[in-house]
Amino acid sequence: MSRLDSFIRRLEAQRACLDCAARLVAGLPGPLLELGLGNGRTYDHLRTLFPDRDIWVCERRVAAHPDCIPPPERLLLGDMRDSLRSAGAAALGGRVVLAHLDPGAGDPAATAALAGELWPLLAPLLRPGAVLVSEPPVAAPTLTALPLPAGIAPGRYHLYRLRCG
Amino acid sequence: MSRLDSFIRRLEAQRACLDCAARLVAGLPGPLLELGLGNGRTYDHLRTLFPDRDIWVCERRVAAHPDCIPPPERLLLGDMRDSLRSAGAAALGGRVVLAHLDPGAGDPAATAALAGELWPLLAPLLRPGAVLVSEPPVAAPTLTALPLPAGIAPGRYHLYRLRCG
Repeated sequence: MSRLDSFIRRLEAQRACLDCAARLVAGLPGPLLELGLGNGRTYDHLRTLFPDRDIWVCERRVAAHPDCIPPPERLLLGDMRDSLRSAGAAALGGRVVLAHLDPGAGDPAATAALAGELWPLLAPLLRPGAVLVSEPPVAAPTLTALPLPAGIAPGRYHLYRLRCG
Repeated sequence: MSRLDSFIRRLEAQRACLDCAARLVAGLPGPLLELGLGNGRTYDHLRTLFPDRDIWVCERRVAAHPDCIPPPERLLLGDMRDSLRSAGAAALGGRVVLAHLDPGAGDPAATAALAGELWPLLAPLLRPGAVLVSEPPVAAPTLTALPLPAGIAPGRYHLYRLRCG
């Protein structure tokens, strides 16, 4: 499998998981949180899936397509660990219904390590029953791994539900 | 359609056209030419499709994944227009059997304009019957547009055959 094949499969998995998550949280009110804006493609996809919800975004430094930059009042700039501890993020406490974690820290080991650091900071922002869509795996006793959409190979992307209380 | 949808469709079209081109030139001997290395994903895909052929690459400045950097003797560094006029490229004269043009000049208009400038420099390197896979459209009397692979929307990617003499 070439890097082009692998990249396409990753993006297809990402999209399928976001689409599935949108169905899973359809009945739960609350804002979304995108951890890692990157070029803004998944932010744009979330906007399309959730035209009526607030989408908050954590990013170190914005380098997205100009059409895909969130409004400043929902942008938490800087190191994600600091951002998740900030007053801005605190206002989200217990309300986020869907979080997407794609921190892109470089190699898979660094990304998984960062996810491990972020989870304890992210968890208090989520409401019970929230869905976490994550590129790296996240191990936590309060998270239940959900089945992936049809055609997505195990481990390529991850879908979790936060225990309901 | 979100930017994520659009990006996935572009990559799927790119891969389908490269795979189709590989079948089209299977019986024609000669090297390949990749115009624009980028992150190296399509170079890696071409390597997978053509393990026994030389693949030459034009790129302004290499910024690809370390696993996807061509050997220096087949790398033409600098402005593509200069590279195609260079002695290195001249050695390819009339021998290239498949060229992939993905110059990524920014917006579609700039990319199409660059493709128009590159074509007269690229044409002398191709052998009769060669296939051109191109992200931007290329209009030339010696090129015949080929049908796109199944499922690829017209205009998303382009596939041409150079007239056989």
